[in-house]
Amino acid sequence: MTQKAIQDYYPGPYAQCYGCGRLNEHGLQIKSYWDGDESVCTFTPWPYHTAIPGYVYGGLIASLIDCHSTGTAAAAASRAEGRDLETDPPPRFLTASLHVDYLRPTPIEGPLELRSQVKEIKGRKVVVTTSLSVHGVECARGEVVAVQVPNALWEQLVGGA
Amino acid sequence: MTQKAIQDYYPGPYAQCYGCGRLNEHGLQIKSYWDGDESVCTFTPWPYHTAIPGYVYGGLIASLIDCHSTGTAAAAASRAEGRDLETDPPPRFLTASLHVDYLRPTPIEGPLELRSQVKEIKGRKVVVTTSLSVHGVECARGEVVAVQVPNALWEQLVGGA
Repeated sequence: MTQKAIQDYYPGPYAQCYGCGRLNEHGLQIKSYWDGDESVCTFTPWPYHTAIPGYVYGGLIASLIDCHSTGTAAAAASRAEGRDLETDPPPRFLTASLHVDYLRPTPIEGPLELRSQVKEIKGRKVVVTTSLSVHGVECARGEVVAVQVPNALWEQLVGGA
Repeated sequence: MTQKAIQDYYPGPYAQCYGCGRLNEHGLQIKSYWDGDESVCTFTPWPYHTAIPGYVYGGLIASLIDCHSTGTAAAAASRAEGRDLETDPPPRFLTASLHVDYLRPTPIEGPLELRSQVKEIKGRKVVVTTSLSVHGVECARGEVVAVQVPNALWEQLVGGA
């Protein structure tokens, strides 16, 4: 795709995450996009992201669901407020809780497609549900409760960088 | 420690996991040990395991809880059956569900200490709860439902390797 991903709008200090930061050269650098009311992320596991041979380890699936969900939360909060990402970067969300149900072994060839829906937006909290599938077969489901970083905490954490 | 870790007893085909496989040269290679009725794993994040600067990304925490819990489940099942790991390798468990509550940002300097308890053993299912702390401050809690790989599925997955 040539459109910018949600994560491409993160300001620099927010863009260091191993899962989703475009500035973390060692990381997964996942990309999330709107597709109507759903958000979508496609990721091909690296060859050594193995659980048992031929299948993806659960921690990668958890990581993808986590970062795709916080990105979705950020974009959903922006959308709900009518903000234009080009001129007004999205707020950053952190994960309060993560739940993953592993339905079946996930083939490592991928690609893994994550499709998410915003279940709830309430104040600074956004709940995101995700279905992860490979070639149309659902392999995992996730739910993330994401909370917007309080301004004061953000200042405390990164010194206003 | 000089004692062997639970993961060191996994047979070769089980030891490829990115999170806990001693044979995955790119992976985290976590090590879990019994400490009485608790299992313990200590892990120092890599410098680029960042979420926001200075703190660990949530996917690593989920990965550690996941793999440490399945290792704990394997060891607990062996212990419950009175098996000697030296002569009778532990059964392999996979994750059916994973839940993580992120209580506060986790300092990346670590070390992260995970201490787990076996909440339930029932048939081929083991439920493991985990507390993750840094220098005694609890940063996350987890619960994993682990299920023993059925023999038939194992044959199907790895061709009896």
